[in-house]
Amino acid sequence: MRAIDIIRKKRDGEELSADELTFFCRGTAEQAIPDYQITAFLMAAYLRGMTDAETAALTIAMAGSGEQIDLSSIEGVKVDKHSTGGVGDTTTLVLAPLAAACGARVAKMSGRGLGHTGGTLDKLESIPGLSTRLSRDQFLAQVSRIGVAVISQTPTLVPADSRFYALRDVTATVDSIPLISSSVMSKKIAAGAQAIVLDVKTGRGAFMKTLEDSRRLAKSMVDIGRRLGRSVSAVITDMETPLGAFIGNALEVQEAIEILSGKHVGTPLWEVSLVLCGHLLALGNLAKTPAEGRVKAEAVLRSGAALEKLAEMIEAQGGDPRVAHDPGLLPQAGDRIEMRAPREGWCSGVDALDIGRAAMLLGAGRTKKEDVIDPAVGVVLAARAGQLLREGDLLATLHVNDRTSLGEARRFVERAFQWSDEPTGARPLVREVV
Amino acid sequence: MRAIDIIRKKRDGEELSADELTFFCRGTAEQAIPDYQITAFLMAAYLRGMTDAETAALTIAMAGSGEQIDLSSIEGVKVDKHSTGGVGDTTTLVLAPLAAACGARVAKMSGRGLGHTGGTLDKLESIPGLSTRLSRDQFLAQVSRIGVAVISQTPTLVPADSRFYALRDVTATVDSIPLISSSVMSKKIAAGAQAIVLDVKTGRGAFMKTLEDSRRLAKSMVDIGRRLGRSVSAVITDMETPLGAFIGNALEVQEAIEILSGKHVGTPLWEVSLVLCGHLLALGNLAKTPAEGRVKAEAVLRSGAALEKLAEMIEAQGGDPRVAHDPGLLPQAGDRIEMRAPREGWCSGVDALDIGRAAMLLGAGRTKKEDVIDPAVGVVLAARAGQLLREGDLLATLHVNDRTSLGEARRFVERAFQWSDEPTGARPLVREVV
Repeated sequence: MRAIDIIRKKRDGEELSADELTFFCRGTAEQAIPDYQITAFLMAAYLRGMTDAETAALTIAMAGSGEQIDLSSIEGVKVDKHSTGGVGDTTTLVLAPLAAACGARVAKMSGRGLGHTGGTLDKLESIPGLSTRLSRDQFLAQVSRIGVAVISQTPTLVPADSRFYALRDVTATVDSIPLISSSVMSKKIAAGAQAIVLDVKTGRGAFMKTLEDSRRLAKSMVDIGRRLGRSVSAVITDMETPLGAFIGNALEVQEAIEILSGKHVGTPLWEVSLVLCGHLLALGNLAKTPAEGRVKAEAVLRSGAALEKLAEMIEAQGGDPRVAHDPGLLPQAGDRIEMRAPREGWCSGVDALDIGRAAMLLGAGRTKKEDVIDPAVGVVLAARAGQLLREGDLLATLHVNDRTSLGEARRFVERAFQWSDEPTGARPLVREVV
Repeated sequence: MRAIDIIRKKRDGEELSADELTFFCRGTAEQAIPDYQITAFLMAAYLRGMTDAETAALTIAMAGSGEQIDLSSIEGVKVDKHSTGGVGDTTTLVLAPLAAACGARVAKMSGRGLGHTGGTLDKLESIPGLSTRLSRDQFLAQVSRIGVAVISQTPTLVPADSRFYALRDVTATVDSIPLISSSVMSKKIAAGAQAIVLDVKTGRGAFMKTLEDSRRLAKSMVDIGRRLGRSVSAVITDMETPLGAFIGNALEVQEAIEILSGKHVGTPLWEVSLVLCGHLLALGNLAKTPAEGRVKAEAVLRSGAALEKLAEMIEAQGGDPRVAHDPGLLPQAGDRIEMRAPREGWCSGVDALDIGRAAMLLGAGRTKKEDVIDPAVGVVLAARAGQLLREGDLLATLHVNDRTSLGEARRFVERAFQWSDEPTGARPLVREVV
């Protein structure tokens, strides 16, 4: 078999066999295939598309290109969750301890992507002492013992995907449904969980801007998972406005802790976390239906058991568990700058992308892998879409250390707030379930 | 401007501007753009195609990526010729001295490609002492003095094309009309001639197998040349059977010398050489029409002036000019192995591809750049399509040094000859003029 023949076949729109995709992924992982052949293949796959069978075979091939985690030593239902990412998306920090407190076994590995704020790993690492670099054995032992661990993906997991991903980023081949869904699902498959809930974001602050694209991506990922014998559901949720009110790394940990402490009831982050947990419990046969799972999850949250589970997880990973009861122990920014309403009126929207850019400018995110994140900085929103505000009401507080780009960050926050002279309805939060 | 944005635009089927293509070609020539971005671009261009305006702009951009030869110091009409390549295609060795003897100024640079036999450079270099590595000044001086020079393309000519070409070869992006035509024409434009005749081969032994594809390629190249203010015609000629009867490097030089000496009148190579020369003379205003040009060319050939011109060129480039009158001075193979007709019947065809493969197996061609060519070896065909043969008649003579692959080479030659019990008409040689 030769790489060039596989490229030619995809170029001509023919369906590749599982053997061919396995050959290509293994050659990619083992550096036997050079970058320039990989990118020609990726562009051909981008433009020609891939069938559902090809996408599933590519997923298996990528998952098989490296280590695959065997969770069979852990008793109980092993669950996992993936979000396509958005602004103020702190659901993992709420959902992981909550699902564990509900009886599921949450064995979650995260990558360290680029974005307006850091990823889940960066958020967790803002907790003093906490490490996300556990060995495989430590990881399995922790999930067996306390039911939950969130660690950084090992470099031996899906090496083909790592190489594909880096090359897609520089060759305009990122936004391809089969390439995205096989990339996401290969990591989930290699990580070993049986039940997987997918949170597919839709809207301006999301990777997929339209409901139609979000639906296609959700369907593709669910199809792959089911073909590979996993229990998978996808929930399409709104990302026009930031999901949480706290955007930043330590700030998002704080919001998660507050939700697990019983605050912010009814807010979008609270709501989405419970919906996703309901689905996870249903997928894992810990509830009959997603609705029943949600009721169970809400009761567990109210009991305080999920907050205790978070404290256990923090302690197990070397962090200071007192943080769970006193978020003031998290890194704090030097300055807090309040931004107030310039006029009276109804807030008709808060643009997720603009708020994300503001957080990025304050130092909360990365544009390049090498960028250093400031865990303390970010934006806390005080006003929400649908509220009537008076001139001078608090809109947002910027948590600032480095003032270099402060002016620009302020302008983005100002621009993010949309105004109306009449009340406007809030957008539905959960758009569809696939 | 960024390479990724240009890739994205081509990916989405948008038309690239001349500025964008210039940026991309300059970045390619200067190594500022990495291989993996170039191949993503090439695959996008392959699958999305390019408009005529884009193809012309790409040609200018590639020609402008390196040195451009200024032929203005040479008096007279500067002409050039390109063939898309085939088996036994010795036209340059006939045409270059012939056109020069007719009064044109032939300033020809050749590349050193891969193929069943070597390229024009390899053929010329089989002449003892002859060099194709002239400096630019030597090249211009020789064309001014004797009217003809055929040298190797300098590495500073169209560096963007050189890099594109090497990458296309390994990423299944070779057979794209806009990429082929811009590659060919960029070299012709950079080499500076005003009048250019293109010999586009069609058939099994050619790169373009169908008349339709050959016509598209011819039209695209002629369109580019005319957009860039050059006088260009394309002649589409048959390549089902080898053009010349001699297939090999020194062997093809021998056939060219014999034609220039007045032999092989009416054979396909003789015919195509005269047709192409007629077009060149018409394009260069040295004849009113291609037909008048052809008549003039034939008269000059008969006069012996073209053979003398070849001898002058050989001598000017350091070779032994006695070769022009005594081809026996060319390298000779150690063995000559005759192959004879296994049956009586009409020869209905001689497959160009099979004969090419046989020559390659005997050592006449290259599969990799590093391969060393044996100038002496090859195949001389004694029988032609349309002839009635008796059992035992001579079909071909193999000129052999290394017998390693002799058996396989013999089988290819046997297979090449097609038989019929009834007379079959010969295919037309010149299919179309564009």
